[in-house]
Amino acid sequence: MRDKLIKTLTSQSWERFIIGVILVNSVTLGLETSTTVMQHIGPILLTLDKLILGIFVIEILLRLYAFRFAFFKDPWSIFDLSIVTIALIPATGPFQVLRALRILRLLRLISVVPSLRRVIGGLIGALPGMGSIIVLLFLLFYVSAVMATNLFGASFPEWFGTLGASLYSLFQIMTLESWSMGIVRPVMEQHPNAWMFFVPFILLSTYSVLNLFIGVIVSAMQEQSVERTDAELKSIHDDNSFLLDEIRALRSEIAALRAEGSVKQ
Amino acid sequence: MRDKLIKTLTSQSWERFIIGVILVNSVTLGLETSTTVMQHIGPILLTLDKLILGIFVIEILLRLYAFRFAFFKDPWSIFDLSIVTIALIPATGPFQVLRALRILRLLRLISVVPSLRRVIGGLIGALPGMGSIIVLLFLLFYVSAVMATNLFGASFPEWFGTLGASLYSLFQIMTLESWSMGIVRPVMEQHPNAWMFFVPFILLSTYSVLNLFIGVIVSAMQEQSVERTDAELKSIHDDNSFLLDEIRALRSEIAALRAEGSVKQ
Amino acid sequence: MRDKLIKTLTSQSWERFIIGVILVNSVTLGLETSTTVMQHIGPILLTLDKLILGIFVIEILLRLYAFRFAFFKDPWSIFDLSIVTIALIPATGPFQVLRALRILRLLRLISVVPSLRRVIGGLIGALPGMGSIIVLLFLLFYVSAVMATNLFGASFPEWFGTLGASLYSLFQIMTLESWSMGIVRPVMEQHPNAWMFFVPFILLSTYSVLNLFIGVIVSAMQEQSVERTDAELKSIHDDNSFLLDEIRALRSEIAALRAEGSVKQ
Amino acid sequence: MRDKLIKTLTSQSWERFIIGVILVNSVTLGLETSTTVMQHIGPILLTLDKLILGIFVIEILLRLYAFRFAFFKDPWSIFDLSIVTIALIPATGPFQVLRALRILRLLRLISVVPSLRRVIGGLIGALPGMGSIIVLLFLLFYVSAVMATNLFGASFPEWFGTLGASLYSLFQIMTLESWSMGIVRPVMEQHPNAWMFFVPFILLSTYSVLNLFIGVIVSAMQEQSVERTDAELKSIHDDNSFLLDEIRALRSEIAALRAEGSVKQ
Repeated sequence: MRDKLIKTLTSQSWERFIIGVILVNSVTLGLETSTTVMQHIGPILLTLDKLILGIFVIEILLRLYAFRFAFFKDPWSIFDLSIVTIALIPATGPFQVLRALRILRLLRLISVVPSLRRVIGGLIGALPGMGSIIVLLFLLFYVSAVMATNLFGASFPEWFGTLGASLYSLFQIMTLESWSMGIVRPVMEQHPNAWMFFVPFILLSTYSVLNLFIGVIVSAMQEQSVERTDAELKSIHDDNSFLLDEIRALRSEIAALRAEGSVKQ
Repeated sequence: MRDKLIKTLTSQSWERFIIGVILVNSVTLGLETSTTVMQHIGPILLTLDKLILGIFVIEILLRLYAFRFAFFKDPWSIFDLSIVTIALIPATGPFQVLRALRILRLLRLISVVPSLRRVIGGLIGALPGMGSIIVLLFLLFYVSAVMATNLFGASFPEWFGTLGASLYSLFQIMTLESWSMGIVRPVMEQHPNAWMFFVPFILLSTYSVLNLFIGVIVSAMQEQSVERTDAELKSIHDDNSFLLDEIRALRSEIAALRAEGSVKQ
Repeated sequence: MRDKLIKTLTSQSWERFIIGVILVNSVTLGLETSTTVMQHIGPILLTLDKLILGIFVIEILLRLYAFRFAFFKDPWSIFDLSIVTIALIPATGPFQVLRALRILRLLRLISVVPSLRRVIGGLIGALPGMGSIIVLLFLLFYVSAVMATNLFGASFPEWFGTLGASLYSLFQIMTLESWSMGIVRPVMEQHPNAWMFFVPFILLSTYSVLNLFIGVIVSAMQEQSVERTDAELKSIHDDNSFLLDEIRALRSEIAALRAEGSVKQ
Repeated sequence: MRDKLIKTLTSQSWERFIIGVILVNSVTLGLETSTTVMQHIGPILLTLDKLILGIFVIEILLRLYAFRFAFFKDPWSIFDLSIVTIALIPATGPFQVLRALRILRLLRLISVVPSLRRVIGGLIGALPGMGSIIVLLFLLFYVSAVMATNLFGASFPEWFGTLGASLYSLFQIMTLESWSMGIVRPVMEQHPNAWMFFVPFILLSTYSVLNLFIGVIVSAMQEQSVERTDAELKSIHDDNSFLLDEIRALRSEIAALRAEGSVKQ
């Protein structure tokens, strides 16, 4: 019976059914943001919501029963499980913010549709090769945040009062949003040399991010081009081994000729 | 007679005539934006406008007559037809906004000039390969918009009051325009942890767009480089097949030598 | 005597002398922007300025005499000539703005230093291949500017009152500077559907610029990689022609063997 | 004894110890930015700080003793030495700002961890090839700053009053931050043609920076692809030299055959 269940859960029609349920749910959750809609068909939407959550819970339980420990080996299953778990926590009191997280169920689309899963895998897979640059960016941010807090924290507590405030402000500056008119020009009115801190920070952080991006581009293209090159090389090697066969045939022919010569003469 | 018409409509001089008419029209429509110009030569411009519209209508009718159903198989013809149709709707009452769409006639240049048509074809052609990333961006936007409406809609109705308002605000944030000083800092005054929503959104959306861009770059370059590699491979294979011919000639020579040897001895 | 002059004008020491004069002039023109400096050593700087202008005039006259009509065939010479000519126009009355153009003399460095000249040549050389995309960008801007003037000109004369104002505002929007908080949100208060015009404009204009950039990148890399491939191919062909020589030598050896065989037996 | 010291200083466990000390120090320096933390465990943190500085000083002295003049040949050693020296200057009076530089010690992580050192080396190594474009960017900035000071300095002293103010404002404009709403629109109210200066500046500076970026991308990818090509070529050459060996063996066989023929007959 478990084998039959596994077959059903991995079948195309089951996949399509789950995709359909997710899409319906994303529409109902979208409609629930509108107060006008809620006044008219609010109860229907909420009932539909509960029904769909029920389907998700049953699906997860079936998969847990069917795959047992293998379920926990697939990161996407754990992803699905946590999304359904979040939906089950009663969204009251301090957990009210979790109501907003219900829409994360839509992300189950990623774990269901193989092509989306591949893209996410690719996006995540490109990151480890970038390890060193990511560490350097963290270093740059931490060092700059500590310096900014020490230098400008007293005069501009809102922007640089704490390490956290500084990190946020530096992130804003790295995205170049209002960095000059909004932050650095006001700071320079009290610390005229502040540009000596902020201009290098902008250059270094954007150059690092650029290199992060270049790294991703280069590694993505290299993969493509290595595949291509391998096929190319294979075709040349095939040619060459064909030539080699011919030459060897020739050689054995000559050896035969020589043997004949020795014998006959 | 239809064949002759087709010949005329696809001739270079007809193409040039239509390009000329489009360029004249674009100048008149540009001049019509100036009230000073309209006070002086307004009636002339409007007459010219009607005349040119007449030429476009006649051209479309001729093409419809000449190509019949084949007309509807070329997307560019349908593009031309809809632009002329828009121009024929009387721009009064609720359709007044259509007056502003008359300038879209200038876009007929794209359907007339082959090199522009190719570029647009290339721009559109690069999109399907990006399907998965585009779906992911839509997912990211929809999920984030529903969450933002639930979380911040009550406190900031102007920015996150409805799903549409949230989508627009998130698009603004993705372009990094005033995201911090204009939106997130004010929001953080009421929801101090709002950065936990917005900073990941910025990272994910810009990284996705980056990957969309990288995808376009990689696919564009791959096409170029595959062509090049094919030529390269062909030249190496030519070399190799030349060597092969030589070796085979050698082999038949030795076979002949061997045959002679057998015969003579 | 003309040959000797040409030799002098194209010598390394003359190049170095002119570079030195340009650098001195760029320092004096930089110092002239400071009123404090001008109060102290203003007359000295202005005299030095005139002296250097004299040197440039004499150099151009010498080159005109030395190269005659060939002078006008080199675009960099015409560049030098126009910069010196601008400096000679009396900067009074309506031409006062020309005083500010004197610093353009510093750009003569580009025409003197070969490596800078090459880079500028490369920058300009990458543009023609981008012709179609540049035309499309112009089309997009012209069509959008006419539409924006018609749609929003009456309500927001400062931003979209004339074709020129619209072009400038659209350029600002393309660079994403204050496009939403500064322009589109105020416009949407009167025209709630304005986003249907601006969001597609942003997507199309930034995507076109991206493709322009990708085009430049692809063409720059292709050039590099074609060179490399040519070298690579050459080395494989060399190998192959070496093999061919060996095989031919072998063949003539066998032919000799066969001939000997015929003779001897 | 010096050899033993060198062995210790270059051992993995010593490297790990120094990394540990740096990480502890970066935590203490981060905690020192919080006044609440300082009120509670301030003295402990400051003592720890002094202790760690002591370790760094001793480590530098040991390395100076161990490596002697070779110490000064490694740029990373000089980097370490200057960071420790800065920490030793008493941060009082005019040097108070140096207190903020203590966090630079964290950057010693870069000189200790080999993979970070390589990335920084790569980042710096990509710059010299960009020499010409960097010179052109400097030229563009200097020329534009002198022109802006002359043209707009009198009306907008805050932005363009001095050469330094102009350089800073132009840097802001190049990053596209508030360039239009913040700077150019106000300037255009007094100088209506100011866009003729600023729009070309934006196009030229962003295009130059783009080319700088493309240069880095191209050179990074070329390096990768040259390596790959070299391996590819080597494998083809190996094939070919193998073929050559075969052909030569064949040739010597035929030569032997010919010799035998001559002898026997």
